[in-house]
Amino acid sequence: METLWTPLILVNLKTYIEGTGKKALELAEKAEKVSNETDACIGLAPQYTDIAQLAKTVSLPIFAQHIDPIKPGSFTGHVLPEAVKEAGAVGTLISHSERRLKLAEIDAAIRRAKELNLVSVICTNNASVSVSAATLKPDFIAIEPPELIGTGIPVSKAKPEIVTETVKLVKKVNSEVPILCGAGITRGDDVAAALKLGTKGVLVASGIVKAKNPYKMLLEFAYAITTA
Amino acid sequence: METLWTPLILVNLKTYIEGTGKKALELAEKAEKVSNETDACIGLAPQYTDIAQLAKTVSLPIFAQHIDPIKPGSFTGHVLPEAVKEAGAVGTLISHSERRLKLAEIDAAIRRAKELNLVSVICTNNASVSVSAATLKPDFIAIEPPELIGTGIPVSKAKPEIVTETVKLVKKVNSEVPILCGAGITRGDDVAAALKLGTKGVLVASGIVKAKNPYKMLLEFAYAITTA
Amino acid sequence: METLWTPLILVNLKTYIEGTGKKALELAEKAEKVSNETDACIGLAPQYTDIAQLAKTVSLPIFAQHIDPIKPGSFTGHVLPEAVKEAGAVGTLISHSERRLKLAEIDAAIRRAKELNLVSVICTNNASVSVSAATLKPDFIAIEPPELIGTGIPVSKAKPEIVTETVKLVKKVNSEVPILCGAGITRGDDVAAALKLGTKGVLVASGIVKAKNPYKMLLEFAYAITTA
Amino acid sequence: METLWTPLILVNLKTYIEGTGKKALELAEKAEKVSNETDACIGLAPQYTDIAQLAKTVSLPIFAQHIDPIKPGSFTGHVLPEAVKEAGAVGTLISHSERRLKLAEIDAAIRRAKELNLVSVICTNNASVSVSAATLKPDFIAIEPPELIGTGIPVSKAKPEIVTETVKLVKKVNSEVPILCGAGITRGDDVAAALKLGTKGVLVASGIVKAKNPYKMLLEFAYAITTA
Repeated sequence: METLWTPLILVNLKTYIEGTGKKALELAEKAEKVSNETDACIGLAPQYTDIAQLAKTVSLPIFAQHIDPIKPGSFTGHVLPEAVKEAGAVGTLISHSERRLKLAEIDAAIRRAKELNLVSVICTNNASVSVSAATLKPDFIAIEPPELIGTGIPVSKAKPEIVTETVKLVKKVNSEVPILCGAGITRGDDVAAALKLGTKGVLVASGIVKAKNPYKMLLEFAYAITTA
Repeated sequence: METLWTPLILVNLKTYIEGTGKKALELAEKAEKVSNETDACIGLAPQYTDIAQLAKTVSLPIFAQHIDPIKPGSFTGHVLPEAVKEAGAVGTLISHSERRLKLAEIDAAIRRAKELNLVSVICTNNASVSVSAATLKPDFIAIEPPELIGTGIPVSKAKPEIVTETVKLVKKVNSEVPILCGAGITRGDDVAAALKLGTKGVLVASGIVKAKNPYKMLLEFAYAITTA
Repeated sequence: METLWTPLILVNLKTYIEGTGKKALELAEKAEKVSNETDACIGLAPQYTDIAQLAKTVSLPIFAQHIDPIKPGSFTGHVLPEAVKEAGAVGTLISHSERRLKLAEIDAAIRRAKELNLVSVICTNNASVSVSAATLKPDFIAIEPPELIGTGIPVSKAKPEIVTETVKLVKKVNSEVPILCGAGITRGDDVAAALKLGTKGVLVASGIVKAKNPYKMLLEFAYAITTA
Repeated sequence: METLWTPLILVNLKTYIEGTGKKALELAEKAEKVSNETDACIGLAPQYTDIAQLAKTVSLPIFAQHIDPIKPGSFTGHVLPEAVKEAGAVGTLISHSERRLKLAEIDAAIRRAKELNLVSVICTNNASVSVSAATLKPDFIAIEPPELIGTGIPVSKAKPEIVTETVKLVKKVNSEVPILCGAGITRGDDVAAALKLGTKGVLVASGIVKAKNPYKMLLEFAYAITTA
């Protein structure tokens, strides 16, 4: 994954109203503009209902926020990997702290993602869980201490040792998987700090989606990540 | 709900490969043709990723297969009612047997649906659960004995007493909510039988979506429901 | 249930360290003393591991905090109704706000409780959910607005209308089921107020279990409930 | 764990009626007799409600079937590690295939077990999940292909390569953790075969608990394991 996709700014639109429907599309167009202006790789993880429209409209990698580890069948209300793929997603978050999966489900979801050439980003909450996830050979690990999510206190400042320990320990079991970090990232400085700690990018949500001026904020992130 | 929408054939596309993406769209176009030819009311419940495209392309009521009982916020991977609404859904299944909700969640999901003018179809597994659900004032109840789902053995024949008991007992606590029935429905006769038991339509999945000729099968259902 | 068991003080020991093991037993002995001195009916809902010891040692009704709606079989880690019964429980909480069940599971759990002559106490969070639960014919409904649990702000004062509305609406669908109320109850006055609102007792946890002097506090509750 | 506890026969009593209450105690007494006669190490994982009685009566290591990764607090209906410890358990299964946990919960449950000196046995379904679990440093891994559980077809014969691959791959990330295997084990031969594949014992349920003569069957297992 490293050559093509990193360093990566991955924007999780969650179920924010500022990231739903028409507003998701507007945000995606701003992100595409920033990406064109800076050559930064920006990925977007919108809601399921918005994947198709975003994938059709912008030339940025689109991620699902979750997939269920299922094959086609009788699973009303579930998220079929084939469906997000056909809608245009190129990857998916797996086991975000707001949508955690059982261990055997993470294993199965990564397999399903591989079968369909979907890039898998496993979200983790600490160093030991990151190591455990890394052995399952996902394409990315995104470490986010849950207690910092949405706080505006960047993990790269509040708990840099969690990030450096994760980078160090994950390397021992899987030297290829790039690490992203997230939680509390709201400024370009936080992004630069994350890269200095050994990560290959950031997973960000409210810092961009709920910013007063998402275009400007993404631009700041993009400069930070391309000049780091 | 009765005047406008009933009798109703509600087709649940589940996560069948035959009901995903382009194939969902083809099925929807066939359903629209049948609806135009027969005046039968046909609703479609596709996967989240297909709601927007179907809602844009066909003039049939589109339902989500599930909503989470949440307001906009930090709920990665969840299904925001506002998102399915903006994508073009006019209603939603709630608590299908393959995606059951806790009681307090069903209550909250119905409230959220009402706030957004989404038609709520609560799925139930027996008469007592139907009565319990009916007190929460959903727009529809769809009773499906889980042991018959996908069997091809129609509830209207195998367990007609479950349907008639449900119709009778629900009326005592909520005389307005129309009852659908489902599970094992694969022929026009089954649909007619369901209406004779006092229901206002059917919830069907594999019987249509996995039929050799879904158009022909839907036509059979539609004739049965409009001439019953 | 009314004659024998009401008015009822039902003490939920949760997983408080003050209500675990030897301390659960000490609390139970104090509760028995209060019950003997005042003739108040006091029930105790300890952790699963403490049911047998409490049931053997004190002459008070012991409740499980939860049962799974299962029959004997391959359900590692689950709570078999037969097991809590044989351990000495005479009843069980079902769907407490900290251990909520799906609607079909509540229905099944109440049936299993009836089969085994276990008294079922369904916990609910508002009036509409209480009505919905009441149609399933449990032995008790315990309404606890979750936002007040553990606050020390008694529902009987903060939101008396939730209690009175629950009592009124439940009566329409099930005139026999006694209502308990809970959340924030820490004084005898709160208990008396709860009865005045039409309930038949209280469900209480930290107000007793974490009290400085649980014996004294229970005595205050017991006087309030027997003189109300 | 290796010196003291292995080779280990760990009997999961599930929620079988043959392993509930008085019958759990009878089974435990038979197991103790076999252990005394053969010097085999036999552990028992009864239901929560039976832990205290078994721990008091027999001199065998008693395991919980599950713990919740919680600290003392407001968790009605949950399984507090402190409670199973005080009841007399010396260890616990974690994430059995019938009670799977999220990855972050497994990590937290192992930490809680370590804090309380409870032996942790993480159950897994394949080699990659075993490796992932092994990085979290549990005391045991028990691999059970779910498709064989309860079939009477022993994993050691039907899928020996799953066991050998697990033993080999786990060693690379954690050379200390002993592997148990389970699913379909019903004869002494199966136990011997399991040890030959590199495991340190077996996790067994119906093969013992539902045997016509559990004493005789356990004796057969015990001879097989002590002479292997």
